[in-house]
Amino acid sequence: MSSVYNDLKQECYEANMQLNALNLVVYTFGNVSAVDREHGVFAIKPSGVAYEVLKPDDIVIVDFNNQIIEGNMHPSSDTKTHAYLYKHWDTIGGIAHTHATYSVAWAQAQLDIPIFGTTHADHLTSDIPCAAPMHDSLIQGNYEHNTGVQILDCFKDRGLSHTEVEMILIGNHGPFAWGKNADKAVYNSKVLEVVAEMAYLTKQINPNAARLKDSLIKKHYERKHGANSYYGQ
Amino acid sequence: MSSVYNDLKQECYEANMQLNALNLVVYTFGNVSAVDREHGVFAIKPSGVAYEVLKPDDIVIVDFNNQIIEGNMHPSSDTKTHAYLYKHWDTIGGIAHTHATYSVAWAQAQLDIPIFGTTHADHLTSDIPCAAPMHDSLIQGNYEHNTGVQILDCFKDRGLSHTEVEMILIGNHGPFAWGKNADKAVYNSKVLEVVAEMAYLTKQINPNAARLKDSLIKKHYERKHGANSYYGQ
Amino acid sequence: MSSVYNDLKQECYEANMQLNALNLVVYTFGNVSAVDREHGVFAIKPSGVAYEVLKPDDIVIVDFNNQIIEGNMHPSSDTKTHAYLYKHWDTIGGIAHTHATYSVAWAQAQLDIPIFGTTHADHLTSDIPCAAPMHDSLIQGNYEHNTGVQILDCFKDRGLSHTEVEMILIGNHGPFAWGKNADKAVYNSKVLEVVAEMAYLTKQINPNAARLKDSLIKKHYERKHGANSYYGQ
Amino acid sequence: MSSVYNDLKQECYEANMQLNALNLVVYTFGNVSAVDREHGVFAIKPSGVAYEVLKPDDIVIVDFNNQIIEGNMHPSSDTKTHAYLYKHWDTIGGIAHTHATYSVAWAQAQLDIPIFGTTHADHLTSDIPCAAPMHDSLIQGNYEHNTGVQILDCFKDRGLSHTEVEMILIGNHGPFAWGKNADKAVYNSKVLEVVAEMAYLTKQINPNAARLKDSLIKKHYERKHGANSYYGQ
Repeated sequence: MSSVYNDLKQECYEANMQLNALNLVVYTFGNVSAVDREHGVFAIKPSGVAYEVLKPDDIVIVDFNNQIIEGNMHPSSDTKTHAYLYKHWDTIGGIAHTHATYSVAWAQAQLDIPIFGTTHADHLTSDIPCAAPMHDSLIQGNYEHNTGVQILDCFKDRGLSHTEVEMILIGNHGPFAWGKNADKAVYNSKVLEVVAEMAYLTKQINPNAARLKDSLIKKHYERKHGANSYYGQ
Repeated sequence: MSSVYNDLKQECYEANMQLNALNLVVYTFGNVSAVDREHGVFAIKPSGVAYEVLKPDDIVIVDFNNQIIEGNMHPSSDTKTHAYLYKHWDTIGGIAHTHATYSVAWAQAQLDIPIFGTTHADHLTSDIPCAAPMHDSLIQGNYEHNTGVQILDCFKDRGLSHTEVEMILIGNHGPFAWGKNADKAVYNSKVLEVVAEMAYLTKQINPNAARLKDSLIKKHYERKHGANSYYGQ
Repeated sequence: MSSVYNDLKQECYEANMQLNALNLVVYTFGNVSAVDREHGVFAIKPSGVAYEVLKPDDIVIVDFNNQIIEGNMHPSSDTKTHAYLYKHWDTIGGIAHTHATYSVAWAQAQLDIPIFGTTHADHLTSDIPCAAPMHDSLIQGNYEHNTGVQILDCFKDRGLSHTEVEMILIGNHGPFAWGKNADKAVYNSKVLEVVAEMAYLTKQINPNAARLKDSLIKKHYERKHGANSYYGQ
Repeated sequence: MSSVYNDLKQECYEANMQLNALNLVVYTFGNVSAVDREHGVFAIKPSGVAYEVLKPDDIVIVDFNNQIIEGNMHPSSDTKTHAYLYKHWDTIGGIAHTHATYSVAWAQAQLDIPIFGTTHADHLTSDIPCAAPMHDSLIQGNYEHNTGVQILDCFKDRGLSHTEVEMILIGNHGPFAWGKNADKAVYNSKVLEVVAEMAYLTKQINPNAARLKDSLIKKHYERKHGANSYYGQ
């Protein structure tokens, strides 16, 4: 089908298929979206469609007010959360939500993931935040919209920057991650899962394991992301 | 071989092969059945046959009184448990039994799996029940038939509905799961295993992790299964 | 190469390759042998040869006094343990030794694996024994021969039958398993690893988990191995 | 491209690809180098290049003073650590650095890996050392060079030999391993990861698990590496 959004759908489709290849989802427990800032829309996985049968044409185009712009299927049930984040964080280009095992375990434990090592500090300088479960009135209201509110509130309360910290755990639910595009959002979902597993094992081996010291946090983050970074090509 | 049950055998065969593909069994430690309500029979895996050599024609057709209707092989040693469930729960179309690792671990620990998060609440609103091991007299009697009795008794004692809670752990043994067809029974076996692993990790990270609050349980279950559900197509 | 032992070598080769396919070894950390009772010899993997390059012709033929009968390579460094077991247990047809992860962990913990469930009882009725590390004088002597002595002593001390209990952990080292042929020895190695993982998780979930009760042990073992067994074809 | 270093680049490329095949890295979290002692240079992975797109020609040739001799890409950000080790340890031919899960967990726990069994003793006779995190002044200085200093200091302080102990954990970071060539460095990285997982599980099963006794350490190490070794061909 010819559409101005074919490239966007393809980007979104490929990022969703990566979730599956990276063992971050089983069945339909996850979704990725990709934004088109020029047209003010994003592409997102249809709800409840298995990865084995998903096609680029199934991807749904939605605007920031949750109106379907193009597509024959219902978009992900988490669509309003994506829309809220795109609307309020204009630097992000992709969002991924999974039920990856270790990330969910920390979310269910309702604990931030402590920064224990350089694998973590290569990507962000703070603990990975776990947002407290929302109030009952918000759950009974516009739940998925309010999940977006919950994420922004958590970042505001803690003084975190969404351009540095590109991931969060929703208490009792699971992770959301984002980035400059859909690929990067999936990458951050995988990094979060790897760091979550390492932190789990660290705590099991040494319940008193110390947080990484500030000098090492700074060094590792700066060499990858600082003004004088020297990692990569 | 021409038979009125060829389609039923094929459905049963494919569901059994899925158990293997989803890493829910090693060797022959598991079995799936599929029912034909019109003829009052079900198709089930033959006992002790490796998945690598299993063929659709090996599937055995049995009625609800455990009489073999068609097939040259001995049916699964757990056949009487399947027959008892089909006989008493007339809404179910498929049953799966596995020795999947995390599900068995909870069964061996003789503990219900607490509802810690939304992955769980997306599928059922209560803890996953672990039935206490049966009395010695029942074990020495018609054991596999009595396993069916044990499952129904557990649901009755706890006031659970088998149309909402489609899975159980048999203490010291392992999981049974069911659904509207054999595919759904396998799906529920996989969901149970995923939820069992997440709950295990949650307890390791935070031994005092709280049960998911009622408002979130209700929200997640209702959006997938309620009258106004909006998940899926 | 034409040899009266070609079939035996092929059986041994295929069983060794299965160890690898079943994720029971990395690199060269394991070996399987197959016996020919008529000729009083056994076939065993050559020492330190990677599974990726192993060929049936590389398999070495050894007699029960550790003399090489056929083959151009050095046999496994554990050969004397195999020879000792074949010499003293004339009902066994194959032996497998691995460094599989959960089996080794219990061996390093120097603990028997408790019988927690029916997956275990489907195969044996007692805890899986962990032999205490041998005395220093025996280690400094004919070590691999003495490992065979250690295994037989452990079974004698505990009153175990090697035809029922087809597996053991050597304290601080790892598992040996055996059976009526090499395939069955590999099967028992895999069963041991699966049961070891399940028992590990059970203890983590519930440190006070109870041993399986006798009636269930008996029921599950008898339905597979008793005079009136009804499992399998 | 024709170059005197083509074989060296190929060796380095293949060793890097093995890291990936052995599940020791995700994304670009690791690097392997191979030395050419005659020319006083080593080949190393370019920084931040994904394994899926890495080509032999991308490998960078660097001398022991960190000067790029050949190649169009930036070498690994850990290059100075490799250079320092090659310069001071003239018997080693390859170095590997990974963020493998269990190795990192012990590094984050800031604990040596105790020698619990023969899998460990088959490769080295001491605990696997975990170097304490370096002083802030060294972190803020020539960090990657100082990581090399840190490794040599740790070996000197503990009286370890780098020809026997071919691996180390850097506290809060992760493992480095080396060997007579790049293949052997990767092999040692995998052995370290396997031993790290087994030691983790051992401690979980039995928090009071005892260190392997000296006689068994000596026996297993000597039969593989001693003057009268009898392992392998």
